[in-house]
Amino acid sequence: MKRREFLEKTLTGAAAAGTAAMAGCVANPGRPSAEGSTAVITGERVKWRLASSFPRSLDTIYGGAEVLAERVSAMTDGRFEIRLYPAGEIVPGLQVLDAVQQGTVQVGHTASYYYLGKSPVLAYDATVPFGLTARQQNAWLHQLGGAELMDRAFADFGIRRFTAGNTGVQMGGWFKRRVDSLADLKGLKMRIPGLGGTVMAELGVSVQVLAGGEIYPALERGAIDATEWVGPYDDEKLGFHQVAKNYYYPGWWEPGPSLSYLVGRKAWDELPAVYREVFRAAAAESANAMQERYDAKNPAAFRRLLDAGVDMRPFSDDVMSAALAASEQVLADQAAADPFTAEVWESWKKARTAAFDWFATAEQAYGRFAFSR
Amino acid sequence: MKRREFLEKTLTGAAAAGTAAMAGCVANPGRPSAEGSTAVITGERVKWRLASSFPRSLDTIYGGAEVLAERVSAMTDGRFEIRLYPAGEIVPGLQVLDAVQQGTVQVGHTASYYYLGKSPVLAYDATVPFGLTARQQNAWLHQLGGAELMDRAFADFGIRRFTAGNTGVQMGGWFKRRVDSLADLKGLKMRIPGLGGTVMAELGVSVQVLAGGEIYPALERGAIDATEWVGPYDDEKLGFHQVAKNYYYPGWWEPGPSLSYLVGRKAWDELPAVYREVFRAAAAESANAMQERYDAKNPAAFRRLLDAGVDMRPFSDDVMSAALAASEQVLADQAAADPFTAEVWESWKKARTAAFDWFATAEQAYGRFAFSR
Repeated sequence: MKRREFLEKTLTGAAAAGTAAMAGCVANPGRPSAEGSTAVITGERVKWRLASSFPRSLDTIYGGAEVLAERVSAMTDGRFEIRLYPAGEIVPGLQVLDAVQQGTVQVGHTASYYYLGKSPVLAYDATVPFGLTARQQNAWLHQLGGAELMDRAFADFGIRRFTAGNTGVQMGGWFKRRVDSLADLKGLKMRIPGLGGTVMAELGVSVQVLAGGEIYPALERGAIDATEWVGPYDDEKLGFHQVAKNYYYPGWWEPGPSLSYLVGRKAWDELPAVYREVFRAAAAESANAMQERYDAKNPAAFRRLLDAGVDMRPFSDDVMSAALAASEQVLADQAAADPFTAEVWESWKKARTAAFDWFATAEQAYGRFAFSR
Repeated sequence: MKRREFLEKTLTGAAAAGTAAMAGCVANPGRPSAEGSTAVITGERVKWRLASSFPRSLDTIYGGAEVLAERVSAMTDGRFEIRLYPAGEIVPGLQVLDAVQQGTVQVGHTASYYYLGKSPVLAYDATVPFGLTARQQNAWLHQLGGAELMDRAFADFGIRRFTAGNTGVQMGGWFKRRVDSLADLKGLKMRIPGLGGTVMAELGVSVQVLAGGEIYPALERGAIDATEWVGPYDDEKLGFHQVAKNYYYPGWWEPGPSLSYLVGRKAWDELPAVYREVFRAAAAESANAMQERYDAKNPAAFRRLLDAGVDMRPFSDDVMSAALAASEQVLADQAAADPFTAEVWESWKKARTAAFDWFATAEQAYGRFAFSR
């Protein structure tokens, strides 16, 4: 019998007998209430590596992973450590899923829509055009079967997923010239990746693909006419307002992007049961921290951008309507091509219809009046 | 030396020496990575009692406390137990703060605005009329200094507070007759407690105070003309739609009610450090569960109420404007009477102005278009 098997059997046996295996070592487990102020967790030392798709400079997002690591450590008295690697240190940001799948790292911190090329259904784990807002996405994932469907999708990659946080509705991006109607989009050169780019192309936009660092110089010299990024706090740091004055909203292609922790199935199965519970809780705390930091930092950055002379402009209704129609067609086409995508699409559509009807009432009416007093 | 002191010294000494005290009992703590699948937490057995202000029948709210207990237990292998008592079993629902202060229970599950009579500043821990929505409240509490201010407020009672979940914007309640304008509110007999009632009284409403179980019969026989409660999911269970067909929105007096766990300082200080971290994480998970369950169950109940013939009606702008003016005056008067309330009010107002400006843009514009496609 190997040492590990021996330990497992010993501990399992003790637990089954209803006693604390280590009672004699620490404290009398029968004591009915807290009398002391010190607890010691003895148990496995576990060290995981996390590869993030994001750089440290996106501090609101990357900071979520930092919260995960801090909280896992705090709840295990330092015994469960997760070491973080920003995009590019172990693998490029868009290869995080592969790194988890191959066991290079135990956990990835990413956005599932980066992997549409592997399966279109993964987009629903993050966001799709005209999709759910942050609270609606959380409700679908955690109460209406979404996470179970997404776990089925990720099972093909030997991965379990956990929600890692949301940005809220993003902005529609920076435009050097005004876009007053659908006609103004024709031929516009815009940097916009993913399904948003697919839909924009349907609307006549000349879609450009540029990495983060290439966007500002391209916008400055006019190689592109427009770009989207995230929202006021992140966009301000890249300085887009210095070279494009029109900041459009909403980012209908990213209404509630939800990030994910992708955990390798083998690492998960080997993780001590209590640490699994700790990881789950720490992931929830980190997701909250990311949302709350955006919701605290975006308002201040929004004000600074206004003070810098940025023109905040809503997309016109004809742009919104054409984008909605094109988006629905893209999702329908994907569903028609794959039965599992169709199953997810149906679950998600049902949740969306019900959520939109309800949120149109109390939440939307309150905001309509109160936010613009 | 008492046994407890001996244990504390022993464990503290072991920790200070940088070794795992129980290494020989469980596993070699020096192993660099996970090899086994079982971990055992040895440590104090702690049993807490939680008194809730809410009955089991409010399953979305009470279920939050159940999640707290389940998650604390799961993360400590059953060693930290929290036993739940619904409203009335140990103390009446509105005496939960007192029960914690007196040490009758270690933790309370309540809404801080129930204790306005002790200090008006406690309302900001929950919600005030024309206050912050759920995400805005979380951002203020956890990122913009709100929780620290509230901890100062609760320190007077020997209590620490933790966020326990949010309902989202509530509905404005059930009205037997239409209220098309401010004039229609004059003399209306409405059941509405708290600051909402204070403001409604300013608008000419005859404010009634009734406990939960008394509301339906009073509305049915016409002793009251209107009542507010929570939102579709909770209201449907009380059957108000059978005796009043007009369901108004939004509940401007409760735009983002945030519940709290109130923990007695002595119990908190005695709690093992790792269990404190576990409690904090479990509280966050329970808060998410409450919000997500409302956001999953309200849409379905909203649809059922529509199918039952309920008329969903927005409050008119003159009602909203008069209510806003009266609400601002109530908060200003409270602040003028107490310097600490003024300090909290200023922090909160600053957060509100910034949050409302930002949320008026991407979030509100997205909802305006998408929710009512």
